[in-house]
Amino acid sequence: MSVYTIEHEVAYYECDINQTMTFPAMIGTAIKASEEQSDQLGRGTDFVHQFGLTWVITNYLMKITRLPQVGEKISISTQAVAYNKYFCYRNFWFRDAKGNELLSVETVFVLMDMTNRKMSSVPEEIIAPYESEKIKQIKRYPKIDKVESGQHLQYRVRFYDIDSNQHVNNAMYFNWMIDVLGYDFLTDHVPETVNVRFDKEVEYGNMIESHYEIVEGEKGIESRHEIRMQDQTYCQAAITWRKK
Amino acid sequence: MSVYTIEHEVAYYECDINQTMTFPAMIGTAIKASEEQSDQLGRGTDFVHQFGLTWVITNYLMKITRLPQVGEKISISTQAVAYNKYFCYRNFWFRDAKGNELLSVETVFVLMDMTNRKMSSVPEEIIAPYESEKIKQIKRYPKIDKVESGQHLQYRVRFYDIDSNQHVNNAMYFNWMIDVLGYDFLTDHVPETVNVRFDKEVEYGNMIESHYEIVEGEKGIESRHEIRMQDQTYCQAAITWRKK
Repeated sequence: MSVYTIEHEVAYYECDINQTMTFPAMIGTAIKASEEQSDQLGRGTDFVHQFGLTWVITNYLMKITRLPQVGEKISISTQAVAYNKYFCYRNFWFRDAKGNELLSVETVFVLMDMTNRKMSSVPEEIIAPYESEKIKQIKRYPKIDKVESGQHLQYRVRFYDIDSNQHVNNAMYFNWMIDVLGYDFLTDHVPETVNVRFDKEVEYGNMIESHYEIVEGEKGIESRHEIRMQDQTYCQAAITWRKK
Repeated sequence: MSVYTIEHEVAYYECDINQTMTFPAMIGTAIKASEEQSDQLGRGTDFVHQFGLTWVITNYLMKITRLPQVGEKISISTQAVAYNKYFCYRNFWFRDAKGNELLSVETVFVLMDMTNRKMSSVPEEIIAPYESEKIKQIKRYPKIDKVESGQHLQYRVRFYDIDSNQHVNNAMYFNWMIDVLGYDFLTDHVPETVNVRFDKEVEYGNMIESHYEIVEGEKGIESRHEIRMQDQTYCQAAITWRKK
């Protein structure tokens, strides 16, 4: 199976006040690695568009050992590990200069028909060069508990939230989910695991609500998140944290 | 005089729907080049902090021939060209792979006392290694016309707007100023010149107003911008545009 690796130096503008990489920056560089692999295999955006299809990410499952730090030289490896009729499973590993794992990300990609916006089965011509394993089963991810309390902030989807792929960059959902937690929480806690599911896409100009609650229970400190609009849920997440 | 150059490949997440680099991304990579030069000359953040000082940018003057495109390999060169008692003048040049100039940026840096937040004179120990010319005169930049009309949108300063330098990244002001222009204007027009002046710093949690108006006159199409809070102006800008 084909593993693709890029080198990356963590820039100051990719880091928050904790001197560590933000979620949008981590997601952005990870997706860049997978796009480069696709281009190298002749399966870039233009090739996929020939089928009237486009890639959409539906899940992220992150396990963080240590967040990349400002100025640090890291590598990001990615591998399309398996696929079934509808779902493609791609993993990412961030490593430090000595090869120690910083974090891993499991993702689920699906192909969407650009005309009717429905999920498409995965054509062999698109997936073959990645040499990923064809499987029958559908992977299940840990359940994301609902947000029960009523706290939320509103965010308008901005022009710069749409990236060159013509959609709201799904790294932006992290901006809305993280921001609500506030300065004190975010400078006192470090994320350990992240479980995100994307249900629907928000669009430019939408006014979204970022709902959240923080729960201390058997999983330790967990923040639960929902991006909602008019009572519909667009994205759900659970993040576990440890105190610094 | 010492010129420092970095190579950069324009990532998809650094570009907007026009497939060209956003202002925050251009400013971010430019400042990265200058920070790397400072580190290499032993005049990085820690050295400057020993004097109780920190760099603040007060002006940007950009001339854009062509915006960098997604996937393009570019170089960013920077040079500290001149300084007087209080002001340091640093220029940047973005070039394509063939060495053609894409854009130039003139900037003004000042040193601020971290305790009393006042401007400091420039110590020789800090500036000497850059080999920039010591001058007497203070450079004057084109006047930025005031926003006369009353249109504005509000933006809350978010956690991710503060970068690892512990301040609101001044690239973020561009996000607020550009966003108000709206999708139709921003996909129909290309920026040609940008003149920005920073007067005061906004802080985490502030609710700022991004005022603007679009004027068609002898300068062609010009958008005028003011970031305001409680009737105080924090940042002013004028951007000239041509129709696509």
